Amino acid sequence: MKTDFFSGIEPAQYKGTDSTDPLSFRYYDKDRKVMGRRMEDHLRFSAAYWHSFTWPGSDPFGGETLNRPWMHGDDAMELARQKADVAFDMFELLGVPYFAFHDIDVAPEGGSLREFNANLNAIADIFESKMQSSGVKLLWGTANMFSHRRFMSGAATNPDPDVFAYACGQVKAAMDVTKRLGGENYVCWGGREGYETLLNTNLKQELDQLGRFLSMLVEYKHKIGFDGPILIEPKPKEPTKHQYDYDVATVYGFLSRYGLLDDVKVNIEQNHAILAGHSFDHEVRLAYALGIFGSIDINRGDDLLGWDTDQFAMNVPEIALLMHEILKNGGFQTGGLNFDAKIRRQSIDPQDLLIAHVASMDACARGLLAAEKMLEDKALEGPLADRYAGWSEPEPQAILAGERSLEEVAMKGLETSPQPRSGRQEYLEGVLNRYV
Amino acid sequence: MKTDFFSGIEPAQYKGTDSTDPLSFRYYDKDRKVMGRRMEDHLRFSAAYWHSFTWPGSDPFGGETLNRPWMHGDDAMELARQKADVAFDMFELLGVPYFAFHDIDVAPEGGSLREFNANLNAIADIFESKMQSSGVKLLWGTANMFSHRRFMSGAATNPDPDVFAYACGQVKAAMDVTKRLGGENYVCWGGREGYETLLNTNLKQELDQLGRFLSMLVEYKHKIGFDGPILIEPKPKEPTKHQYDYDVATVYGFLSRYGLLDDVKVNIEQNHAILAGHSFDHEVRLAYALGIFGSIDINRGDDLLGWDTDQFAMNVPEIALLMHEILKNGGFQTGGLNFDAKIRRQSIDPQDLLIAHVASMDACARGLLAAEKMLEDKALEGPLADRYAGWSEPEPQAILAGERSLEEVAMKGLETSPQPRSGRQEYLEGVLNRYV
Amino acid sequence: MKTDFFSGIEPAQYKGTDSTDPLSFRYYDKDRKVMGRRMEDHLRFSAAYWHSFTWPGSDPFGGETLNRPWMHGDDAMELARQKADVAFDMFELLGVPYFAFHDIDVAPEGGSLREFNANLNAIADIFESKMQSSGVKLLWGTANMFSHRRFMSGAATNPDPDVFAYACGQVKAAMDVTKRLGGENYVCWGGREGYETLLNTNLKQELDQLGRFLSMLVEYKHKIGFDGPILIEPKPKEPTKHQYDYDVATVYGFLSRYGLLDDVKVNIEQNHAILAGHSFDHEVRLAYALGIFGSIDINRGDDLLGWDTDQFAMNVPEIALLMHEILKNGGFQTGGLNFDAKIRRQSIDPQDLLIAHVASMDACARGLLAAEKMLEDKALEGPLADRYAGWSEPEPQAILAGERSLEEVAMKGLETSPQPRSGRQEYLEGVLNRYV
Amino acid sequence: MKTDFFSGIEPAQYKGTDSTDPLSFRYYDKDRKVMGRRMEDHLRFSAAYWHSFTWPGSDPFGGETLNRPWMHGDDAMELARQKADVAFDMFELLGVPYFAFHDIDVAPEGGSLREFNANLNAIADIFESKMQSSGVKLLWGTANMFSHRRFMSGAATNPDPDVFAYACGQVKAAMDVTKRLGGENYVCWGGREGYETLLNTNLKQELDQLGRFLSMLVEYKHKIGFDGPILIEPKPKEPTKHQYDYDVATVYGFLSRYGLLDDVKVNIEQNHAILAGHSFDHEVRLAYALGIFGSIDINRGDDLLGWDTDQFAMNVPEIALLMHEILKNGGFQTGGLNFDAKIRRQSIDPQDLLIAHVASMDACARGLLAAEKMLEDKALEGPLADRYAGWSEPEPQAILAGERSLEEVAMKGLETSPQPRSGRQEYLEGVLNRYV
Ligand SMILES: [Co+2]
Ligand SMILES: [Co+2]
Ligand SMILES: [Co+2]
Ligand SMILES: [Co+2]
Ligand SMILES: [Co+2]
Ligand SMILES: [Co+2]
Ligand SMILES: [Co+2]
Ligand SMILES: [Co+2]
Repeated sequence: MKTDFFSGIEPAQYKGTDSTDPLSFRYYDKDRKVMGRRMEDHLRFSAAYWHSFTWPGSDPFGGETLNRPWMHGDDAMELARQKADVAFDMFELLGVPYFAFHDIDVAPEGGSLREFNANLNAIADIFESKMQSSGVKLLWGTANMFSHRRFMSGAATNPDPDVFAYACGQVKAAMDVTKRLGGENYVCWGGREGYETLLNTNLKQELDQLGRFLSMLVEYKHKIGFDGPILIEPKPKEPTKHQYDYDVATVYGFLSRYGLLDDVKVNIEQNHAILAGHSFDHEVRLAYALGIFGSIDINRGDDLLGWDTDQFAMNVPEIALLMHEILKNGGFQTGGLNFDAKIRRQSIDPQDLLIAHVASMDACARGLLAAEKMLEDKALEGPLADRYAGWSEPEPQAILAGERSLEEVAMKGLETSPQPRSGRQEYLEGVLNRYV
Repeated sequence: MKTDFFSGIEPAQYKGTDSTDPLSFRYYDKDRKVMGRRMEDHLRFSAAYWHSFTWPGSDPFGGETLNRPWMHGDDAMELARQKADVAFDMFELLGVPYFAFHDIDVAPEGGSLREFNANLNAIADIFESKMQSSGVKLLWGTANMFSHRRFMSGAATNPDPDVFAYACGQVKAAMDVTKRLGGENYVCWGGREGYETLLNTNLKQELDQLGRFLSMLVEYKHKIGFDGPILIEPKPKEPTKHQYDYDVATVYGFLSRYGLLDDVKVNIEQNHAILAGHSFDHEVRLAYALGIFGSIDINRGDDLLGWDTDQFAMNVPEIALLMHEILKNGGFQTGGLNFDAKIRRQSIDPQDLLIAHVASMDACARGLLAAEKMLEDKALEGPLADRYAGWSEPEPQAILAGERSLEEVAMKGLETSPQPRSGRQEYLEGVLNRYV
Repeated sequence: MKTDFFSGIEPAQYKGTDSTDPLSFRYYDKDRKVMGRRMEDHLRFSAAYWHSFTWPGSDPFGGETLNRPWMHGDDAMELARQKADVAFDMFELLGVPYFAFHDIDVAPEGGSLREFNANLNAIADIFESKMQSSGVKLLWGTANMFSHRRFMSGAATNPDPDVFAYACGQVKAAMDVTKRLGGENYVCWGGREGYETLLNTNLKQELDQLGRFLSMLVEYKHKIGFDGPILIEPKPKEPTKHQYDYDVATVYGFLSRYGLLDDVKVNIEQNHAILAGHSFDHEVRLAYALGIFGSIDINRGDDLLGWDTDQFAMNVPEIALLMHEILKNGGFQTGGLNFDAKIRRQSIDPQDLLIAHVASMDACARGLLAAEKMLEDKALEGPLADRYAGWSEPEPQAILAGERSLEEVAMKGLETSPQPRSGRQEYLEGVLNRYV
Repeated sequence: MKTDFFSGIEPAQYKGTDSTDPLSFRYYDKDRKVMGRRMEDHLRFSAAYWHSFTWPGSDPFGGETLNRPWMHGDDAMELARQKADVAFDMFELLGVPYFAFHDIDVAPEGGSLREFNANLNAIADIFESKMQSSGVKLLWGTANMFSHRRFMSGAATNPDPDVFAYACGQVKAAMDVTKRLGGENYVCWGGREGYETLLNTNLKQELDQLGRFLSMLVEYKHKIGFDGPILIEPKPKEPTKHQYDYDVATVYGFLSRYGLLDDVKVNIEQNHAILAGHSFDHEVRLAYALGIFGSIDINRGDDLLGWDTDQFAMNVPEIALLMHEILKNGGFQTGGLNFDAKIRRQSIDPQDLLIAHVASMDACARGLLAAEKMLEDKALEGPLADRYAGWSEPEPQAILAGERSLEEVAMKGLETSPQPRSGRQEYLEGVLNRYV
């Protein structure tokens, strides 16, 4: 370890289900094969720079609680280097194969965009070296274009074209760095791409701006040969009253409108899903159905709270359904499970950071194993296929293929007297409980 | 009047703002000109058959409260005729120019689809005559494919292709009747086109079924020369856990995916908007921005309740913003303000039905007048234009037109230091209060 | 079995965790000892008459789906007897030791309160005999004073004192029958004790009416020697906009205000808890803290829906925390786990009713076993005791005992410089996951 | 004016309804008599120190936007003095008769509680002088015991008794200063008196700590002769997952449990009301019904957002109902309308601060005038009295007085056949619309 922040702590190991050590894994055994692929290669865990290393524990009603050494000092670049040391210490203690960051998480903004870009590249040099020695890879990079006051009324959707231009400058640099570090995706979360009140908002204009911005980014990605997809992360609200990338369905319509379906996919977060009124499973399944599934920000929200709590995912049944969906569709391609999760502000000990990740990694591994078993048994897929079997017949297939007119089918309808069949929901819920 | 249900009550008249008669209008003066068009022609009010004439006052925890004479008796067709008499009495007492109905609202379902279609056409004969004598027109017709148990797992999205065929038979008849009665639109609300649990749902299959169903309906509409648009009414949930036509943005994506943007628009309901987490104004403005605005189901939900209360719209500020949006876009074309609203189940007197409509019509008229004045003064549009003025310049226009690359704009971004300008939200809220 | 409704189905048996038979128990082994008491005696399961036997599968947008034979016929008393036969068949197939009912669930209302009371007593005769032969006992009885239109504006809180009097007549009969059948509790759910709008509501008057009503019931209970507690079931809304028995804390304040804390406790339902913005565990723990815990309506709501879905509880982690709380406090006294849960309206097969109960009973048994283990290990109680250990010291005890003034403690405060300690939330979440 | 922050702006004047000047009043005419009392004496407006002078415009996803001069500098006491100058400038430009503050809003915390107390008293000296010269009075004072990390796990409810002692020290000083400045109330908002997870929380212990803390404060208030009431401000959640002072009903139960009903009342905030699932009017009416109404934090939340937005109240119909309730109960005693409201973070111009207050004061004045007229006309009170008239009869009065047994009333119930009467909700909504 480079630092003594986690001093005395050993790398987390798989110790089996009898272990009571909170810094050991009970299920996550990275080399264990699941449907022919190593667990580590299935889950593709990524640690997030922002929550673990840039957030001081503050909330709207209170200040810093965590007291991180690298947040206090005068030399911003030196602090950024200390932060990187602790970050890679954590990545190695956890054994996560990936990490992810916003530009401003890792480098000081300085006094100008030029200076920021220089700082960013200086830190990228350090990352390159650390990535090489540790083997930790970059799942994705992104630009934070929502925290600074210049973005208070939006970045791409700002009423001021100068802000749009500034955002172009910033996103270009973040894309360049992501490419240089071998990032497998590039993420856009539109934290201020929305509005506080329609009274001062030209909705159509702002959507067009956003469409143009994304299109330019796609063109640039192709130009520089960045292979990974661009991922939009939907969120319905917070910080703004309404955000344009509301949910998966909204993003799909947006991509369709602006001709971006080939190049842009989604990064789905559980907490954002529930803020939009959807289950996590819904968002994931819909993204697959629409062909835009990209990656996951794994976390959990509080169903009874109306804001983004970004807690560590611990609920095995939900994760099992998530992994079932992902395995069913062939597993992750460029995506992974990125821990967009933060410890509670009362979890002030360094080891709380590790314990939280370990416990959530283990819950994911357990979900993966349950999903594997359900798929092997066709526990859910079997009944599903049965339920829709009627649509495999030639006549229904012809209808779906567009070979029948309303009048033709309506005539047939006059002759039928369809009898409902049980949806068997409670049976299926019981089945799920057998696996989790 | 044909019936004595509303006996002793005179048609509602405009009596000016000093009137305290709850059966008079204080603002709605149908021949008054607003921006060159009669109030009646702007607002295009429609009474809804279902809430006022088919709902007995029941809710999930209680039965009938309203005791309507036409709901009790043995001869279903005779009861349907009595209901029609009362309905047209109400239309005339209110002076609404339009009405709207589901097929099963007006005619008994009988023992088969054939019999239902015959009943529906027999009632349509009566409607034709009543429409002629009263001058009341049909804003839209629709088929109820959600109440009967055969539709418990969906109509177009049912796992059983026989139900799909049955739905084709029913929707064809409803479209035929709507055309015959001169309906100006045809509405689809997918009350069971969704799911209760993803455990038993093939999401992609169901979306494809729904896309095919709508496409067939569009083809049929063209074939028979039905001029009006088909309108999807978005609703996120209730009765199902999740409905496919979640909100305006979702419907847009769906129409885009299945190539239906030319023929299908949306019918937006306030209560459905807030259940989806959106303001009414948002949904309307978005529909205009996306080019799919069709019509309005005017009502109001309770912001603190999680179900569709379908109350009468009374909140003038919200209606003023609605009418501002509609006027700004040239006013209704085929659409109108349909009262998809029901009296509370404790409002058991016949005159409660009339008082509720009159009070809400008056709130709409007041909102219209406020909107006219705001537009005349450019009270909101002026500041809005100022805010986005920068985008009218040649360079920003070139960006929007796709004539600039990311690198070009990024270079410019390096030279700017954008300074935020006030969003002036409280100022604009104060302005709105000056008009309502 | 008395009827052929569940024909061919054998009583559910414990078959161990390898069983895949949905009509067998994998965890519920009724004679197994848990902390010295049989599982059956811990869980005290009760089946609910209403959801399983009186609900036809309707919802606000659709009618009957379930087609129960005892819901169709002319002789209301004969149908009530058929229903009782099927109900006791189910109780025996499931092996539940208790049931619960509303008066109108079991007997036809007839044309007057006198007639209803006679019908109710006639069915009670049948129940007595069936209870004796089957060994099934009555967990609680209650009066439905919310479904009939006479109660549309409340029962005890009605603006019309005649309705109050009618409610007294009905509740007296229900209490009499409950006592006669050996009911262990009497429950009051105030389904219409609330309001639709404050515009027509005298809140203080209605609270006083409700207080008086409960007081009279308590006096009567003592008079007739009914031993069990009266239980109020909190619910915040639905069917009304606002219900007076909003949540546990509100009921506590109400009981305190009207001097009812000695005789009235609460019956807590999971779905009502979340509608009020609380976790189930919160409501249970608060009821114990305030000394008013009575019993449980075990079910689950949908966190993303705003109405009472009354689904079967399947969520083992939540149930484990519930049972942990109950075990920690000595286990149920008069209360139990009453299945206030209904199958989905698409679950139309008779066996769906059984499968749902079996799966949920099993989830409860599994939660009980997890709770037992957590208590044995002090997995949660240990860290909790450590966290508050400081308050066991003499000086803090003196403060709590009221022996110190603000000035005295404030002086001490001037000398301290308290250092926060980690709340360890993620650690504890990981611990819970070890047990479920 | 002492500072040039609002340079060039004149005090807001009443200019009548034709005024379009956003810095003038259209309704608020402070000397106008309403029901025999000056408008200013009715509304008792108070400006809040925190939102307007200590909040930099940050939110959980972004930093400072407002760039206030007094927030940047090295000499904390000098900055506090500058802030006081600007604050009193604003109070005078608005013409508000009151202000309110938390201890840490006005004085730097320094390095110890002793130092903080000294700073607080130094600023109080300045306030005394400014209050004398301006005539602005103190509506209430309070202690911020939620922002500092020492309070992360609660102040009075902290697991560490040392934090409890520290809180005693802080609250005593804040009470002393409030008394010295002639504060008319003392407010307690328990921002951390709640929990993040029940897994680490001893609920009963914490409630007892909170009860003891409040009791000590009440004893101290009497000892020093502070005349005003202590007011608890209910809020259900945020920052914590669950706060003990959830809503008015919960606070009532708490006060009752700990014997505090004589000395403690509530300060009700609209935004907190809706976060708890209640209308503002509900909370106010309930507080009057329970005898614990104290004061109002006037603001508005966003019904579609799940956090405390603290926007300026602009909604005239809601305010009219609020003022109707307050006037009906005799008007404010020690309480008033405190602007616990903040401008949006995009409202960065100094005049936005003034415009927001002026617009909201005007909306309040308009609501007051509407309420006066409704009361004069008995527009709502007349129908309400009619609805409950039956309870004025001798027999119902005897029931309410506890002079009848359940059996006696039940006997009467057997003879009645109550007929429901219309609740007339839509009629009453139309009536309200006549006044607003
Ligand atoms: Co995320
Ligand atoms: Co998040
Ligand atoms: Co509608
Ligand atoms: Co609706
Ligand atoms: Co219940
Ligand atoms: Co329920
Ligand atoms: Co407040
Ligand atoms: Co607030």
